[in-house]
Amino acid sequence: MYFDSRDERCKRPYGAVPYGTEVSLSLFADANEEVARVALVAHGEFADTWDEQELTATPLAGGRTAFRGVYIAPDAGELVWYHFRVIWKDGHEAHFGKNGFKPWEELATWQLTVYDGESKTPDWFGGGVSYQIFPDRFRRGEKRDVAGMVGGRTLHEDWDEMIDYLPDARGEITCSDFFGGDLDGIAEKLPYLRSLGVTTLYLNPIFEAASNHRYDTADYRHIDPLLGTEEDFRALCEKAKALGIRVILDGVFNHTGSNSVYFNAAGFYPDVGAAQSETSPYSSWYHFSHFPDEYDAWWGFKTLPAIEESDPDYINFIIEGEDSVVRHWLRAGASGWRLDVADELPGAFIERIRRVMEEEDPDAYLIGEVWEDGSNKIAYSTRRKYLLGAQTHALMNYPFRNALLDYLMNENAEGFREAMETIRENYPPAAFYGAMNFLGTHDTPRILTVLGYCGEWPHSREERARIALNRGERYRGVRRLKLAALVMFSFPGSPTVYYGDEAGMQGFEDPFNRETYPWDREDTALIAYFARLGKLRNGRASLRRGGIEYLLSDGALLAFRRTLDGEESLTVCNAGDAPAAAKLPWRGETALDALTGERFGAQDGYLNLTLKPLQGMLLIEDDAV
Amino acid sequence: MYFDSRDERCKRPYGAVPYGTEVSLSLFADANEEVARVALVAHGEFADTWDEQELTATPLAGGRTAFRGVYIAPDAGELVWYHFRVIWKDGHEAHFGKNGFKPWEELATWQLTVYDGESKTPDWFGGGVSYQIFPDRFRRGEKRDVAGMVGGRTLHEDWDEMIDYLPDARGEITCSDFFGGDLDGIAEKLPYLRSLGVTTLYLNPIFEAASNHRYDTADYRHIDPLLGTEEDFRALCEKAKALGIRVILDGVFNHTGSNSVYFNAAGFYPDVGAAQSETSPYSSWYHFSHFPDEYDAWWGFKTLPAIEESDPDYINFIIEGEDSVVRHWLRAGASGWRLDVADELPGAFIERIRRVMEEEDPDAYLIGEVWEDGSNKIAYSTRRKYLLGAQTHALMNYPFRNALLDYLMNENAEGFREAMETIRENYPPAAFYGAMNFLGTHDTPRILTVLGYCGEWPHSREERARIALNRGERYRGVRRLKLAALVMFSFPGSPTVYYGDEAGMQGFEDPFNRETYPWDREDTALIAYFARLGKLRNGRASLRRGGIEYLLSDGALLAFRRTLDGEESLTVCNAGDAPAAAKLPWRGETALDALTGERFGAQDGYLNLTLKPLQGMLLIEDDAV
Repeated sequence: MYFDSRDERCKRPYGAVPYGTEVSLSLFADANEEVARVALVAHGEFADTWDEQELTATPLAGGRTAFRGVYIAPDAGELVWYHFRVIWKDGHEAHFGKNGFKPWEELATWQLTVYDGESKTPDWFGGGVSYQIFPDRFRRGEKRDVAGMVGGRTLHEDWDEMIDYLPDARGEITCSDFFGGDLDGIAEKLPYLRSLGVTTLYLNPIFEAASNHRYDTADYRHIDPLLGTEEDFRALCEKAKALGIRVILDGVFNHTGSNSVYFNAAGFYPDVGAAQSETSPYSSWYHFSHFPDEYDAWWGFKTLPAIEESDPDYINFIIEGEDSVVRHWLRAGASGWRLDVADELPGAFIERIRRVMEEEDPDAYLIGEVWEDGSNKIAYSTRRKYLLGAQTHALMNYPFRNALLDYLMNENAEGFREAMETIRENYPPAAFYGAMNFLGTHDTPRILTVLGYCGEWPHSREERARIALNRGERYRGVRRLKLAALVMFSFPGSPTVYYGDEAGMQGFEDPFNRETYPWDREDTALIAYFARLGKLRNGRASLRRGGIEYLLSDGALLAFRRTLDGEESLTVCNAGDAPAAAKLPWRGETALDALTGERFGAQDGYLNLTLKPLQGMLLIEDDAV
Repeated sequence: MYFDSRDERCKRPYGAVPYGTEVSLSLFADANEEVARVALVAHGEFADTWDEQELTATPLAGGRTAFRGVYIAPDAGELVWYHFRVIWKDGHEAHFGKNGFKPWEELATWQLTVYDGESKTPDWFGGGVSYQIFPDRFRRGEKRDVAGMVGGRTLHEDWDEMIDYLPDARGEITCSDFFGGDLDGIAEKLPYLRSLGVTTLYLNPIFEAASNHRYDTADYRHIDPLLGTEEDFRALCEKAKALGIRVILDGVFNHTGSNSVYFNAAGFYPDVGAAQSETSPYSSWYHFSHFPDEYDAWWGFKTLPAIEESDPDYINFIIEGEDSVVRHWLRAGASGWRLDVADELPGAFIERIRRVMEEEDPDAYLIGEVWEDGSNKIAYSTRRKYLLGAQTHALMNYPFRNALLDYLMNENAEGFREAMETIRENYPPAAFYGAMNFLGTHDTPRILTVLGYCGEWPHSREERARIALNRGERYRGVRRLKLAALVMFSFPGSPTVYYGDEAGMQGFEDPFNRETYPWDREDTALIAYFARLGKLRNGRASLRRGGIEYLLSDGALLAFRRTLDGEESLTVCNAGDAPAAAKLPWRGETALDALTGERFGAQDGYLNLTLKPLQGMLLIEDDAV
């Protein structure tokens, strides 16, 4: 029996389908298999439907038989799990799934994602190049005094100082040391971002908050005063727009800070907060098991009281109201939101945000923080919907990062292909092409450290502060990083650079992944490499929107081709420590490596390449440059 | 009793004196000391003379007595040790030296250096800014193949690779890995050096040799083919000259390589070498205790057979001959020689070199590698002469580096002052003002690592390869390095930058202090700081030739003033981790910190400054910039 959901002979159309699509399915049996009948069994998970339909047998040459049928996808967002019931001529029957013939309880079924085909996903995000900034640490435009600001802030005197990383006298990690990076500083560096080819700026939280990461929102309606003012934000967005750069904000709606206008545990704000009185206007936002000291909090952190997102007042404040938070900042210049911990937001809450965003600006973009395959994720025992048209446009693509690291570190090109082909099959095309791809974020160790560090991973904060890459590690790390960036910039989805990764920044986990951008100590050769990739992506539609086809995925060798309207871009990587030969199909007479300018002649429709250890190429038509 | 050789009331003129100088000496006794007579006891060490002369008593106000006399310095280069014999009114007597009244065998005597006042020292070196390059690691202009070159060389593929640092299969450190830095590369970067204010380029060995450091000379008459050709050397010197930069070569005359034209142990060269036959034309250069396997070698390294520098043929070849090595390369464009391991060269050999250099070019400069106070060094049980006029013009100033590090690391400003005032007193002025001052060389760990590294100093090569500075160490290291550079650039003697120290290079001892220059990864802010210092030094005669006066040397605080023809430059440093106040005399109404542009008002002839931790200032007249 043969059925491969990615094979057009077995299933058409490829991958996820819009509501009501007619999906042609064909299963093939060899002559000696003696199959009498085959039925398609399809389970719609959300609507909890079960369909069974018999397929039509068509005899083929050589005694083989095709069992064909057309499955009509539901008229609603759905996750359909299907397999085949096979009845042999001798009358016995069995279930056939991805893992072959298995008892029901062991059967792996195929996934068919059914999404709203009418739903629109703006293509500026996925087609562009993104840059993530942790605002306190990118660039300081103006030196401000932290006196009078919320929280027990300290301000580093010098930009290049070491971050605070040890617990305070009470044993707590307070994240209260600031460097004073600000919106003016970001605005000042927009030309630099433009030179990298950046078209989208994703800012970690910028609203008033006590901590340097600002995920403990104190006031959703107020830019943190150390960052600047709403006027500064508007000016930043305008200047960015003039350079073709949009701004996406971090929406942290699952919790607030305990030190906030709303909870006001420290009494810093004049309003009566939920922690101060059970009759606070904000009492309904939170859930106290025992007022005032026991309350739901994010992962139990008492400084992050959890929000009851179903509270109508909160929904009104954040989403629905006339000047809601979501609306206000879009009007002020933002082009989208990234939803923090999307797994912990109710589906209806996310769908409301999407709806309101579309009302405000059909071009606005909504990204979810989800760490796994978002088409079938189960979070808190519930199958979630993210990408079916009414929710987020796309997700942070952690699976991409994981598979890419596995390829680079363990020479597992097959694994990269399989993981990414699974995503491509499971995601609606707009979500696949609109994904936020990245090598690292504020929540992961710095990519250069991940790719270069050779010792045992350090356990303690002291060790993590202590250790830097040595010359040899750095050398290998940079070469691997260049491969990683090459794959990311030539892959479907927006290549998203975490500030400073392009400059050679190092560091283990938080807070060492949040050091200040090393102005005047950048690795300018590495920056030039990223800028080159950015320029290539912005200049070549095949890299932005082209189809993807894997020509090679074999251990250390990975090659994939992006094509669109006759334009072809061929990415080839050798992640191994030894030279490697690759024979790859090529239409033209010669190919140009867009990274080096080197030319290669094709013979009989093939390029015979030899890649050095850790070498990557981006091959394009010879007359393209 | 009071006598301070640095006090003009006690001794005139200050410091070392030319042949035959009349030196006024005055010793002061209080009324209650009941001194009857005082005699000066002076021992000329080289001529082994002993003089004693009675001083004349002159009554002073308050019952004090001055004992005065004039000592006439010998008419030859000499090291005079003197003290006083004191006879009291009761008839008993004792010896009075630097450490007070002591028995003869414990007495510390004063040093009077007597030098040839007719001897000329070109001032371009000491007045300029120098830059030391380890040629294989600075810049690669052309990629060459090492095949056919002397030694078992390997060539690194990439400039940024890790150096080889582990012993080979036979347990030997071969120093045979090359990166291919070359003379063309240096020539390409001359504008960069000029932008740093460099006026002298000191090159580590450039002659053909098997090892990457090239201290194992294989052919004194041949530029190493991986570096280029004699033509390339001439072109480099010409281009440098056009930019106002002179070139100094490393003269390694104490030993050759075993793999050389002269010794030819491996039979690589066509001539018959001393290791091949006892009748080799070079046999007289070496000393065999048992031919061919037992011979004198530098520190016992068999790859570095020691030279018999008294051999007439060798002297002719290196120094005296019509086209001797010393002459040849001066004629080819070099402006001077640095003598490797000067301690191990016979005095007469050095004096011959000096004489021949003066014949060739009165402007040529001769520097000796001496690690201590060169005015009184005893090497191999012999008191050496280096600075008396007939030998080197000046020395590598290791005492400066040692004292500066002690100040910066241990807040020992007093120690810095004392060590440097000792050098100033002992050295002829031209040698003090012409010294090669530096923070590091190819023989020391990188200065940034020395100043920044906080852990236990790593013992093994593996550890030294493993460890890099972390962010916090780097931050403190850079701040200390800026202080170090400030002191060096504002001190008498040529500030000499070891390639890449200005770019933030790190590394422990050899070979980690010889990594490739990090092109495109430089710390450009640090480079800008060095360039600023270079510009200030080149623009201010007081920094080049002015007198030096210490205004403050107290723990973490060091301040010294350089003055010349009314121009004043005041260097102030706080090497401590706490802010520090300094009250310093200032003639003008305001002072300008030439490093930051900050202005300070003077009150009643004083500046009241507060220096931040690790802050340095270079204060100049407000109208100077």
